[in-house]
Amino acid sequence: MAEEKLPTRAENFAEWYNQLVLKADLADYAPVRGCMVVKPYGWTLWENMTAALDKEFKATGHVNAAFPTLIPMSFFEKEKAHVEGFSPELAVVTHGGGEKLEEPLVVRPTSETIIGYMYAKWIKSWRDLPVLINQWGSVLRWELRTKLFLRTAEFYWQEGHTAHATAEEAKEEMFRILDIYADFAINECAVPVFKGQKSETERFAGAQITTSIEGMMQDKRALQSATSHYFGQNFAKAFEIQFVDQNNTLQFCETTSWGLSTRMIGAIIMTHGDDQGLVLPPRVAPIQAVIVPIFKTDEEKSKVMEVADRIFKELKTAGIRIKMDDRDNVSSGFKFNDWEMRGVPVRVEIGPKDVEKNSVALARRDKPGREGKSFVPQAGLAEAVSQLLVDIQASLLKRATEFRDANIHDPRDYEELKKIVQDGWALSYWCESKACEAKVKEDTKATTRNIPFEQPEHEGACIVCGQPSKRKVYFAKAY
Amino acid sequence: MAEEKLPTRAENFAEWYNQLVLKADLADYAPVRGCMVVKPYGWTLWENMTAALDKEFKATGHVNAAFPTLIPMSFFEKEKAHVEGFSPELAVVTHGGGEKLEEPLVVRPTSETIIGYMYAKWIKSWRDLPVLINQWGSVLRWELRTKLFLRTAEFYWQEGHTAHATAEEAKEEMFRILDIYADFAINECAVPVFKGQKSETERFAGAQITTSIEGMMQDKRALQSATSHYFGQNFAKAFEIQFVDQNNTLQFCETTSWGLSTRMIGAIIMTHGDDQGLVLPPRVAPIQAVIVPIFKTDEEKSKVMEVADRIFKELKTAGIRIKMDDRDNVSSGFKFNDWEMRGVPVRVEIGPKDVEKNSVALARRDKPGREGKSFVPQAGLAEAVSQLLVDIQASLLKRATEFRDANIHDPRDYEELKKIVQDGWALSYWCESKACEAKVKEDTKATTRNIPFEQPEHEGACIVCGQPSKRKVYFAKAY
Repeated sequence: MAEEKLPTRAENFAEWYNQLVLKADLADYAPVRGCMVVKPYGWTLWENMTAALDKEFKATGHVNAAFPTLIPMSFFEKEKAHVEGFSPELAVVTHGGGEKLEEPLVVRPTSETIIGYMYAKWIKSWRDLPVLINQWGSVLRWELRTKLFLRTAEFYWQEGHTAHATAEEAKEEMFRILDIYADFAINECAVPVFKGQKSETERFAGAQITTSIEGMMQDKRALQSATSHYFGQNFAKAFEIQFVDQNNTLQFCETTSWGLSTRMIGAIIMTHGDDQGLVLPPRVAPIQAVIVPIFKTDEEKSKVMEVADRIFKELKTAGIRIKMDDRDNVSSGFKFNDWEMRGVPVRVEIGPKDVEKNSVALARRDKPGREGKSFVPQAGLAEAVSQLLVDIQASLLKRATEFRDANIHDPRDYEELKKIVQDGWALSYWCESKACEAKVKEDTKATTRNIPFEQPEHEGACIVCGQPSKRKVYFAKAY
Repeated sequence: MAEEKLPTRAENFAEWYNQLVLKADLADYAPVRGCMVVKPYGWTLWENMTAALDKEFKATGHVNAAFPTLIPMSFFEKEKAHVEGFSPELAVVTHGGGEKLEEPLVVRPTSETIIGYMYAKWIKSWRDLPVLINQWGSVLRWELRTKLFLRTAEFYWQEGHTAHATAEEAKEEMFRILDIYADFAINECAVPVFKGQKSETERFAGAQITTSIEGMMQDKRALQSATSHYFGQNFAKAFEIQFVDQNNTLQFCETTSWGLSTRMIGAIIMTHGDDQGLVLPPRVAPIQAVIVPIFKTDEEKSKVMEVADRIFKELKTAGIRIKMDDRDNVSSGFKFNDWEMRGVPVRVEIGPKDVEKNSVALARRDKPGREGKSFVPQAGLAEAVSQLLVDIQASLLKRATEFRDANIHDPRDYEELKKIVQDGWALSYWCESKACEAKVKEDTKATTRNIPFEQPEHEGACIVCGQPSKRKVYFAKAY
């Protein structure tokens, strides 16, 4: 129950976030270092998100499977960049069944290695390709600084792993998935994101190309919300994933991997939340509308509850995820605050006067106070609420997009860039050298987020060194 | 691809099973001791099963959540029977992020301990009860002898964990879930099971009552297919899960847990499979019907494929999980064998003559050869196939139930029991002493499976020692 107020976002955004996650009942700290418990309300949100995403994966020919949680340590040694990237973060099983293991096992931080091993076993011919497998589960990375949903030692995600006959097909797959991620973020989560390519420094360990979607949070920091990687033949060579092509020649596969995690819940929170708490996009909200019946006397109660029960059934039948808050030990005001904290998009208030007038009061979560309140007839309420949910979804996306676009700037020079990235993003030409990227990071703590695929027609000069540059990149401080 | 035949069930049931799992493309051995990879075909079967079960859990007020994979070792010490039961099977993480951990972490073999710890934090008042949480995931038990789906080190399951104010409510929950499991096994998987109570010896480590569903496989061995436990206050006391009741008195909660795993896939295989391979119940089958177009010339091909494509769309639109096998590199005979191996309930054959006659040939998987073949008009095919799927589902359950009932006996004396359990089950009075249970196990390798809730009105004499007995129990060799 949400008795205490949150700090405001302006006061302390980080603390606002931490407290919101707990008070909105999304997650809790686990008694294991850096791990979280995703509570039922948070997990139902995740289930709604995963259902939408899973449907898109399946519609594009992907299938799900399950690979082991534990991976032999030696598997990580096989791809040089991969082991360098992940070895500091591994949790290692050294004992099993009371005995010391001959070879230590790693709790998977990601599954390219073990899936690559299996693909080498399964793939023989060009007829077996492409292999398009996804896995839903959790992975573990021994992170030092953790934050619920944004960076936890164990987190929940999907990881897709595909093998193809040609580089072209593998790259198409990488882009196809990136599009699915962007559509999902924008249309389901109302989180406007930019698609683009990561710099070499920011690439996944072992990838030849990493692409990402990046969103701007309300504190103007960037959040990498999902990534899609093209490996070329790196993993195929490390694990001998080979096929006989149509000319009867043995070839290495081209592979990809891609993942979206519970981090996206953090994106939703930080994109839409306000000082009263969580604000959820209706399409993924566990509860889309809550009914709060209001009464004082028993007589009022029986009249109000009759209408409330009928409306509950009507809205449920219409496919709205509806909740009745008939608690008798807390006040209506407490209930309002409670459901605002949990970000329920629509509140339906029914009091004795509403019963008389055959109306109800609707309060939309995205517009607090009078602005978001309307009085509508009980007749046709399911349709009215459904339409309101559509409006709220669109309105959240519009607001977030406007906020983002208002905070992206085109600095004239490096001095201006340094100021801008303290409280916004810069979209600037960059020569793509590691030196310039490192200088920006050192001077400002901002990093390159991604290089958008849509670029101006003209070339320009690197904002840092002035050398010719073909593409602009987003510079921003990031989570 | 299924090039080679299986050994027959009569020849070698165990080897028939092992090869079937691989050839039907359900699962593969992982490069980690005792672990499996569930392949897309097997995982889609599991997804269909979990969707049906999850729906029932939610319909009865349960919600899903996610608790960490790693559990502090000390948590296991808190419940004496629990640690004794599980400590030989633990996989232990001793290092994280390159350093030795202060306290080792265990890869969860089951989650009563960590969930109990969180419940103690969350539950304060009688108003917070009941807590009805389920978790889908995997657990790890360091098993020495493993067999795909039936007993693997890591396996996939759901584990429900509930907390209640009274013993009565907790026991009701245990039975409610047992009913859900039995209905699921019978109606979705067509696996007839008996509900009953486990003996003290066979109880879950830490439980006061363990109930189970038990099915008879075609080799007449029993398979425990799911369990539902009542813990009393054992875990509540170990983890201090307490609430203030309506009289303002601090009380310990009463808790339950319950689980159904990928073992149920083994039950489906061993209940319905035949010497040609897997036989899947239509309600959970990943592919319910496969279309095999048959042609020789290009002219035939274009005529046949036109009809096949139209039928594919019709059946898909009707909600049938349909697959088109238009491979051009294998013969029709190969395709027939291949889909029989994978247990697809209905095969739709379309050749040039069928095109002429506006008909198709339907072959039902549960009745091989001519008996299962029919020729039906193309008009109304979706309806005909839907009805056939319903018939197959019912027919599988009927056949399995008849087989089971024909192999349960009522031995007159202990000598007869010893013979019966070599090739069937005995339902016999038992005095419920550990001594008699142990004697049967030593003499025959059969164990008590469960004590059914429905019992004869009269009491009887223990089949082993002759002492008075109130209840009959199933004795059988088990997996």
